[in-house]
Amino acid sequence: MKVIDSIFSISFIGSGNVATHLARALHNSGHLIEEVFSPRLPHAKRFAEQFGCNVAKDLKELNPKVNLLIIAVPDAKVEEVAKALPKIRGIVVHTSGVTGMDALKDADMFGVLYPLQTFTRNRRMDISDAPFCIEGSDERVSKSLFQLAGKMSRSVQLISSKQRKELHLAAVMVSNFVNHLYAHSQEYLGRRQLDFSLLLPLIRETAAKVQDISPKKAQTGPARRKDEPTIKTHLEMLKSFPETAALYHLFSTQIKKKYNE
Amino acid sequence: MKVIDSIFSISFIGSGNVATHLARALHNSGHLIEEVFSPRLPHAKRFAEQFGCNVAKDLKELNPKVNLLIIAVPDAKVEEVAKALPKIRGIVVHTSGVTGMDALKDADMFGVLYPLQTFTRNRRMDISDAPFCIEGSDERVSKSLFQLAGKMSRSVQLISSKQRKELHLAAVMVSNFVNHLYAHSQEYLGRRQLDFSLLLPLIRETAAKVQDISPKKAQTGPARRKDEPTIKTHLEMLKSFPETAALYHLFSTQIKKKYNE
Repeated sequence: MKVIDSIFSISFIGSGNVATHLARALHNSGHLIEEVFSPRLPHAKRFAEQFGCNVAKDLKELNPKVNLLIIAVPDAKVEEVAKALPKIRGIVVHTSGVTGMDALKDADMFGVLYPLQTFTRNRRMDISDAPFCIEGSDERVSKSLFQLAGKMSRSVQLISSKQRKELHLAAVMVSNFVNHLYAHSQEYLGRRQLDFSLLLPLIRETAAKVQDISPKKAQTGPARRKDEPTIKTHLEMLKSFPETAALYHLFSTQIKKKYNE
Repeated sequence: MKVIDSIFSISFIGSGNVATHLARALHNSGHLIEEVFSPRLPHAKRFAEQFGCNVAKDLKELNPKVNLLIIAVPDAKVEEVAKALPKIRGIVVHTSGVTGMDALKDADMFGVLYPLQTFTRNRRMDISDAPFCIEGSDERVSKSLFQLAGKMSRSVQLISSKQRKELHLAAVMVSNFVNHLYAHSQEYLGRRQLDFSLLLPLIRETAAKVQDISPKKAQTGPARRKDEPTIKTHLEMLKSFPETAALYHLFSTQIKKKYNE
């Protein structure tokens, strides 16, 4: 078996948010971004310009000699991409929370490099505090990936496919669902001629306080106090917002039950 | 009518989180905290020690000569407290999001001082970026309250009772409901032997990105991509978490509908 003790040259499949943020961090820590493939050629070209790398016209044409190939495509596409890969000499990884490592088992050396963070196009963020969840097909692969992730982030964890899926599910709740609550509030306030920006300090503090105290201790609000008149008033105010009312009702019912049993 | 051009001496009814944070900010900006009343005498005494003020044994015994009396009690108690008040020479305000200003209309001068922020016992936070929503029974009262709030915060808004209620409803969603999602994630991960702290950078970034871009643009995740296999997998993983599954299902249905119509 070939062993990679140190990863230098890296290629990407995918040129979206995750690929771009990882490539930037790896480029900045002195790695060579070798090549990129994306079905969306203009995106691949923009990525290639940014990191001074080649553009592969086809998956089959990818340079097989790289130390690491990172598949950073939507979760649902990982298996399809893996099946179409040429033989790669280095390690092949994906970056998906929900996909098992075994999706890549046709490669000699494979693994997972999953940053537990939300990435937004055109938004710079500090990847160095994102926990990287690492998994490798054997111990030396794990070690190589651990080292590599440690150059991008202060927090690297060896996490099994099963645990990664569980973390990803929890991440969906605290990020995607939380953001949907922000969207409900913005829409509601907009239709009432009020400015969503008034809520921004509250949004910051709500996220800040669970950095220090547990969410269970941090819970406040009408449902926590079992303040039925306020809950009733709010549901009346949401009469022309049926979807917001449905969420309001479910949350209030759950919170009342959780804290007042 | 008596006019208060400048507020100096301030009494409190209530000695909880809101009262304590406001008293600290007002004390620090050079105001005299005159007196406190709370049905929970040990709390009132602790409050009084902290700000060097008197403890009133009964609502009826409150010193009527203060410039401002702040009623910082649970929303459901404001009206009851207002009815039991002696005649106060200064302005009487409450701090409730959901209660109309008119609950205080027996006073000569009255208003509202509503900080749009979440307050947690034993947690210091910077009140100076909390938007203060102000309402006054007449223009001079509004002006006095506006001035006073301006000493505590950089952001002071004149907001009607109707609008304040609407802001409060939106605040419940982006703070209390968001925190409940954090609690679901913590419980889920705990039962899977995983550490909630792995989500903290994601929680910070999710709150940080809507400071710059709209929640609608910031939305990501399986439901946003209409990734049905992942949604199905997640619902299966939540089989022994029926309440979490109910939230997951409702959010995913709404997000798919909102972004894919």
